[in-house]
Amino acid sequence: MQTNGSSSKGEDLNFEAIIFDAYGTLFDLDSFQSEAERIHRGKGKEISQVVRQKQVEFTMTRDIIGKYVNFEVLTRNAIEFAIKKAGVRRTDTAVEKLYSKFLSLKPFKDVVPVLSDLDELGVRVAILSNGTQAMLDKLIERTGLALLSEDVISVDGAKAYKPNAKAYRHGLDELGIFEKERILYVSANPWDVAGARAFGFKVGWINRTKQPLFDEGYYEFRPEFEFSRLDQVKELFE
Amino acid sequence: MQTNGSSSKGEDLNFEAIIFDAYGTLFDLDSFQSEAERIHRGKGKEISQVVRQKQVEFTMTRDIIGKYVNFEVLTRNAIEFAIKKAGVRRTDTAVEKLYSKFLSLKPFKDVVPVLSDLDELGVRVAILSNGTQAMLDKLIERTGLALLSEDVISVDGAKAYKPNAKAYRHGLDELGIFEKERILYVSANPWDVAGARAFGFKVGWINRTKQPLFDEGYYEFRPEFEFSRLDQVKELFE
Repeated sequence: MQTNGSSSKGEDLNFEAIIFDAYGTLFDLDSFQSEAERIHRGKGKEISQVVRQKQVEFTMTRDIIGKYVNFEVLTRNAIEFAIKKAGVRRTDTAVEKLYSKFLSLKPFKDVVPVLSDLDELGVRVAILSNGTQAMLDKLIERTGLALLSEDVISVDGAKAYKPNAKAYRHGLDELGIFEKERILYVSANPWDVAGARAFGFKVGWINRTKQPLFDEGYYEFRPEFEFSRLDQVKELFE
Repeated sequence: MQTNGSSSKGEDLNFEAIIFDAYGTLFDLDSFQSEAERIHRGKGKEISQVVRQKQVEFTMTRDIIGKYVNFEVLTRNAIEFAIKKAGVRRTDTAVEKLYSKFLSLKPFKDVVPVLSDLDELGVRVAILSNGTQAMLDKLIERTGLALLSEDVISVDGAKAYKPNAKAYRHGLDELGIFEKERILYVSANPWDVAGARAFGFKVGWINRTKQPLFDEGYYEFRPEFEFSRLDQVKELFE
């Protein structure tokens, strides 16, 4: 674990809760790629990359334009776009097959034990995701994560997508916590790290793939902590 | 050319000006890819794709967070990120070499003759781009496009990026035109088409690569016109 600037383990951080991002942070998008590859041989990588890129583009564009549509619809749209682009004939069945895979993404290997350890340490753990409540509930149900259902929070309640401040505010309100800096927010997505920092959370960037530095494009929003493995998060609570 | 719904050639469209997007619409981003390939053999495609994806992500994220940084800085940041990701050692020279290529993108083959024809037809032609004034002036200067310098407009004057309404509003104000629907806005980028439609321009989507349909994710913002070649734009003014 690396700490950045003034924040360090020795300091009295005194977090009231950890909020994790879901897609790419707790749940492995590569598991979608291998399922897409099983269905559309030779095109799984392209399809999964385009789906992810379009999810991000659609949510951000709609946030900027001010025309919110929920993540279930936008994910189906991203899949429709990706399969057309990959030259697969678009049928409802092809879209639904891939969409169902997005509802059963696998958690990264370290997620179940780390969340269980945090629970034993008495740490309150929550999720704040761009996914809808139904999408998140399905993911959690299938993986048996140690989470209270009221701490699985969808931005859908705020009709705003991360990195919009309204989405992070909604997470805080749902948890009933008043001080932003009493939250440790953990995400793998640089735009989400930047948004959470700009909002005022303390932020940990989980960088599993060893990217050399935090994104150049977000230099004023560098996270307080950088983790290469999820169990390093526990060190802040032991 | 395809027309969508109520708008058609027969109708009295009576446009006061055409505004073109620059990157990907008039200027070919593939010409950046071949230059990147010449400098970093075997990695040109990856580098140019990542640069473009990060430019879009950085501009949108910063628009949402409300922390504007100009496109010159964000383009250098995107290049820095892309070359690190591609495993190229990041040096100032490596970044500057690629950045200079971004300032000399080639226009698509049909751009110079079509803009010259529009000029002869007496059509007022403008550019509205996320690029800075200096970046745009350099592009125009090198290609000798038939454009008045005051009609080359950067969103930098509004400190907001497309697809934010403030950016389109700035274009309209700079042209001194009051009615949005008297503008034909032409772009190749679906998020830009959606933003311009949401703002209230009449919009033409230039779809050179024959994507099968307008992006699923933006179905309420379908453009009035779809062009497969730029000279089809002229038909609306003849």
